[in-house]
Amino acid sequence: MHTTGVMRRLDELARFSSEPDALTRLFLSPAHKAAAQQVLAWMRESGLTAALDAAGNVVGRIEGARPGLPAVILGSHIDTVRDAGKYDGAFGVVAAIEAVSRLRAAALPFAVEVAAFGDEEGVRFPATLIGSRALAGTLDPAALDARDAEGISVREALRRFGCDPAGLPVLARRQGDVLAYVEAHIEQGPVLEAEGLPLGVVTAIAGATRCTVEVDGMAGHAGTVPMPLRRDALCAAAGMILAVERAARETEGMVATVGRIEALPGAVNVIPGTARFTLDIRSADDAVRQAGVDAITATCRRIAAERHVELRMCHTYAEAAAPCAGPLVAALEAAVARAGIRPRQLPSGAGHDGLAMAALCPVGMLFVRCRGGISHHPAEAIGEADAEIAVRVLADFLQNLDPGALAA
Amino acid sequence: MHTTGVMRRLDELARFSSEPDALTRLFLSPAHKAAAQQVLAWMRESGLTAALDAAGNVVGRIEGARPGLPAVILGSHIDTVRDAGKYDGAFGVVAAIEAVSRLRAAALPFAVEVAAFGDEEGVRFPATLIGSRALAGTLDPAALDARDAEGISVREALRRFGCDPAGLPVLARRQGDVLAYVEAHIEQGPVLEAEGLPLGVVTAIAGATRCTVEVDGMAGHAGTVPMPLRRDALCAAAGMILAVERAARETEGMVATVGRIEALPGAVNVIPGTARFTLDIRSADDAVRQAGVDAITATCRRIAAERHVELRMCHTYAEAAAPCAGPLVAALEAAVARAGIRPRQLPSGAGHDGLAMAALCPVGMLFVRCRGGISHHPAEAIGEADAEIAVRVLADFLQNLDPGALAA
Repeated sequence: MHTTGVMRRLDELARFSSEPDALTRLFLSPAHKAAAQQVLAWMRESGLTAALDAAGNVVGRIEGARPGLPAVILGSHIDTVRDAGKYDGAFGVVAAIEAVSRLRAAALPFAVEVAAFGDEEGVRFPATLIGSRALAGTLDPAALDARDAEGISVREALRRFGCDPAGLPVLARRQGDVLAYVEAHIEQGPVLEAEGLPLGVVTAIAGATRCTVEVDGMAGHAGTVPMPLRRDALCAAAGMILAVERAARETEGMVATVGRIEALPGAVNVIPGTARFTLDIRSADDAVRQAGVDAITATCRRIAAERHVELRMCHTYAEAAAPCAGPLVAALEAAVARAGIRPRQLPSGAGHDGLAMAALCPVGMLFVRCRGGISHHPAEAIGEADAEIAVRVLADFLQNLDPGALAA
Repeated sequence: MHTTGVMRRLDELARFSSEPDALTRLFLSPAHKAAAQQVLAWMRESGLTAALDAAGNVVGRIEGARPGLPAVILGSHIDTVRDAGKYDGAFGVVAAIEAVSRLRAAALPFAVEVAAFGDEEGVRFPATLIGSRALAGTLDPAALDARDAEGISVREALRRFGCDPAGLPVLARRQGDVLAYVEAHIEQGPVLEAEGLPLGVVTAIAGATRCTVEVDGMAGHAGTVPMPLRRDALCAAAGMILAVERAARETEGMVATVGRIEALPGAVNVIPGTARFTLDIRSADDAVRQAGVDAITATCRRIAAERHVELRMCHTYAEAAAPCAGPLVAALEAAVARAGIRPRQLPSGAGHDGLAMAALCPVGMLFVRCRGGISHHPAEAIGEADAEIAVRVLADFLQNLDPGALAA
């Protein structure tokens, strides 16, 4: 258990879980409600005027030089995956509250708000970013009809949480009222650790394309079909998997992953007649991603033709990249540099609430080094010193932010 | 429905199934009992003295030039896999009965027996070749304790079938009493069809090595871990699968197959930390197979080392090859040639009752072309003309067999 500031609060927040021996805090669950109430209390202790809104977000505000100025929103999310770590999302919320408590807010030419969104992980419902989309004004009302595994709709779950879904449309902010959205988040990757840097400045949230790939060859007896007469679907898939890896290795700024695979019929003594696998391709640059998808598709088609197997690729998901705003990247880099750290730009391969907020305002993100790049796992960890530096950088960033630069 | 001889009987036998719309006839099931009684009736119609033995085999005998001469046993099995074809096993039994019915047995210098074994597929119990091992005298009594999915032991199932397990030891034949075991069987592979030949003469029943392979790398977020920092277990496995294929392609007389694979944790957006797959390597030449296993193991180790992943290979099964007896291969080839067919030697990649019978006597096998090489599937098929040629060749083989050549 940590004894100071941010780390202690992260330990405390991790106790709000629906499981006794693991951290699982799904959107609109009782554990989420308890965590939201704790966050609300911390916001108020830090001088923010705070409330739970109709989307289940906790939002607090502290005025700047005069009441009613446009706001810079800091934030992240307090929902988690199942059996999660303590830092994904929670860090950005706790660090934001801590940073605001250190501000001389009355000297700022803007208000500062802190948002603790509730639906970034998208685990409970087949919908995601409901909270940040509500603020951005892009929430599709149909998302309220999404149901969890027990058949409970988002609408019903909001009511049980104590929220009135009728209040959702009012949450949408006007563009002029929000100067920027800035999120601190653990990196969830190994780049900063590998380079020995506590912080990084995000250039863009990567876009992603997902496909399911099915290869159909011919099943046969593993003992009786000579190699030249085989049309082994799994061997074809293996060639494609290596081609996917090669394409990503050779393309700067793109990653590609085959995360699932199965061979059918799936017996030790039967040549696979069918192989199915998934494909996930990401880049902060949509043109790079699209070129990668095209190249991988062409290579898979060539392998299928060479091996006389059928290929079906089905695109299941596509999300464009969300570039971070240049002035925010520059301002965050300047704050990082003032903390004596070499500024390092990197893309975010994972999605974040910033994807939704980008429809409303300029978005910036600050990444914090996490141990081993591990995330979505109880072993997720950050260093206490890194957490403190991130809070200092966030506060310094706000203290030095020029709203005029953002409008440019 | 076929109207003549062997094909009509195969259609009739296929009706004995434990499923209304599929052919499933497991060892010692009521469907097996009904099929055994039908086979018994056909044997008796063809002049054989026949009975059900203590192992659930139907065995018939017709004497040669004088009673009590050593026997040539023809045979195969009448159990099936689930949702089977009509020809695997059944063809060899029905063809043997038909061939014997055409013999001038009283002119032969040996007796002829026909055996319909009941446990070649090994589907019901974790044991196999119980019937042929009983005749060969190699049945491990522990096999009687093997239990099916419902907890019924082989011993109990034999009793329910109407057999007395106490009679099993008596079934073992003395070596001098059996001259040879010869089995006709569908090829279960595509070689004969590809070469336009109705028949082939088996040189050996291949030996097999099976392994499970586990590759451990490091799981990670599909969006946040750059390619150079990954230790993707599935990419490593893909390289190994292609290496397995390459090794088999480059090795005359060996086949190798990866039939099952899984990647863990198995999510579209997670880099696989673990990959598991099976390996099945076969050759009619044990030295070739062992060299192949060694080469594949070395290549997998090299790939694992290059990719900084852990490799565990666990050998789960190994069975030596059973070479067919040279004089039987020659005699079968001569009979094939007399039928006007180019003799074609080929190994059997699949296991057969001959694996057990080889402990007792010289073994020979005659393969019949099957459509598309398909087996263990309702689409299994052979041509009526091919079936007729096989019966003629079997009868001709017996009519011309010189027992003296076998002793040599």
